Amino acid sequence: MRIFSPSLRGSVASLGEEALIAAIRRWLGTASPSAPYGMGDDCAVLPASRRRQLITVDPVIHGVHFDDRTPPGSAGAKLFKRNLSDIAAMGGRPRAAVVALALDGRVDVAWLAAFHRGLAAESRRHRVPIVGGDIARLPGGFVATLALTGDAPRRILTRRGARPADRIYVTGELGRSFPSGHHHRFQPRLAEGAWLSRRAEVRALIDVSDGLAKDLRALAPKGSEPWIDAAALPLRRGATVREALCDGEDYELLFAVAGGSNGAGLERAWRLAFPSTRLTCIGCFGRAGAAPRGGLRLGTLRGYEHLR
Amino acid sequence: MRIFSPSLRGSVASLGEEALIAAIRRWLGTASPSAPYGMGDDCAVLPASRRRQLITVDPVIHGVHFDDRTPPGSAGAKLFKRNLSDIAAMGGRPRAAVVALALDGRVDVAWLAAFHRGLAAESRRHRVPIVGGDIARLPGGFVATLALTGDAPRRILTRRGARPADRIYVTGELGRSFPSGHHHRFQPRLAEGAWLSRRAEVRALIDVSDGLAKDLRALAPKGSEPWIDAAALPLRRGATVREALCDGEDYELLFAVAGGSNGAGLERAWRLAFPSTRLTCIGCFGRAGAAPRGGLRLGTLRGYEHLR
Repeated sequence: MRIFSPSLRGSVASLGEEALIAAIRRWLGTASPSAPYGMGDDCAVLPASRRRQLITVDPVIHGVHFDDRTPPGSAGAKLFKRNLSDIAAMGGRPRAAVVALALDGRVDVAWLAAFHRGLAAESRRHRVPIVGGDIARLPGGFVATLALTGDAPRRILTRRGARPADRIYVTGELGRSFPSGHHHRFQPRLAEGAWLSRRAEVRALIDVSDGLAKDLRALAPKGSEPWIDAAALPLRRGATVREALCDGEDYELLFAVAGGSNGAGLERAWRLAFPSTRLTCIGCFGRAGAAPRGGLRLGTLRGYEHLR
Repeated sequence: MRIFSPSLRGSVASLGEEALIAAIRRWLGTASPSAPYGMGDDCAVLPASRRRQLITVDPVIHGVHFDDRTPPGSAGAKLFKRNLSDIAAMGGRPRAAVVALALDGRVDVAWLAAFHRGLAAESRRHRVPIVGGDIARLPGGFVATLALTGDAPRRILTRRGARPADRIYVTGELGRSFPSGHHHRFQPRLAEGAWLSRRAEVRALIDVSDGLAKDLRALAPKGSEPWIDAAALPLRRGATVREALCDGEDYELLFAVAGGSNGAGLERAWRLAFPSTRLTCIGCFGRAGAAPRGGLRLGTLRGYEHLR
């Protein structure tokens, strides 16, 4: 479905701003509560919380994160899920979202309705209201930016915290996220992230969004490097090792587990808690420059480069 | 200063993403704390607060909210201040910001450095850290979207709450915000908004961003309409009444004061608290359709239309 309408008829410009805002509220339905706890005032109000708060922001951009072949509802869902995945990667619980739309006046109203219905479905699925937003004109383009707040878990799992000899685990499968459609069909690993934050042997957590090779480097403790067993990598159907390492947009959880801990115990507990989510030990953090012969060399591999 | 570099040299694409993120941290300096309370993890972490939380989001877009004649530092400052003005309009206190950049690879690095220094100066001035963000590619454009959280005051001032016969006040001056440069030079009325939330006779508050005529309608109680005294409108130097009503981007506070309250007392207290911020009573909310002869007719006036 084409995002830009060939004529003014059926475009958001023909609708005008006030009617568009009313339509967005209709499309969001119960996903969007009333002001001041929702859309319609200068700010949205969130109830007080005793937890530390998490905040993240990520966009979807036409031509970059989706294109005219992506169903518009999937583009909207992807916008929500990318941000949910960031909350999952801290072990947190999402609370509320705001959405800023920057769009050309020629954006098709039917396209935008489907986009918002996709957003609303994710909002309801995860019980995370869309509490506010903004609309502005962007000649020739479409950028939707979502900011998401969350409650932090008691123990936050950051990217820092891995130590030498920690084992490295990853959920799900990697690679070919774009050609397979996984990039908009994935489910953010919220329950898994919250569960991991309660396991003392888990020391560091990140979501794989820029490609495993790059995200592994972000997790590596000082003086260490990831020693990865290429044969262990959970490849998506048809994916090569290189694609698993570099493609990005996997939205899986990557984490470090204390080297001396009972790995079999963790894996057993995982299978009980998440029988349908694959979990794979793909290697460990070893001394930099001392990788075993035949081990995977990540040094020269780059992840997804956002600016080229 | 031109935002887009004529050659690859000096552009963000030539820098690459990792170097750009490092540069942004340098440009932001003390405005950006370290992870997890700042940039560098999947989410930023904010300390717990006992207050209800406020959240708002607003972008600046090249060619819409600023252009090549706007100093880049002012464009960055404007991004921060537009959002601060929304927190001011609830009587709140800003806490932390995240910034999502969507930009063409040809954006000039020196331009972007100045933009971030402008952001950082506002961050430090208001003691509101920039705790996280995102960078993505936007072919042919530049959109920077900032989401801002805040602590709500004990009594939140929303747009709802005005009653018939309430008097209408506005701060500062109106109109010609773009030609005068006010649109990027204004100071968000944070202290004033917080003060107003503590005055029981103030019933509703909004910031004037879409033009007085439109924002007045948002404030009007049911069955009432704003009766405005055109001669009382605080016009910016050179502005007409129509410009004061329709231009938008004034970022002043507009509020309703209980009709039976002591107006002179409020004005005296205001002058003591804010001797350099002009405050004007511009009319009241009267019965719809019964405006006095010669009164200003707002019915046909539209505010700023974002999609045309």
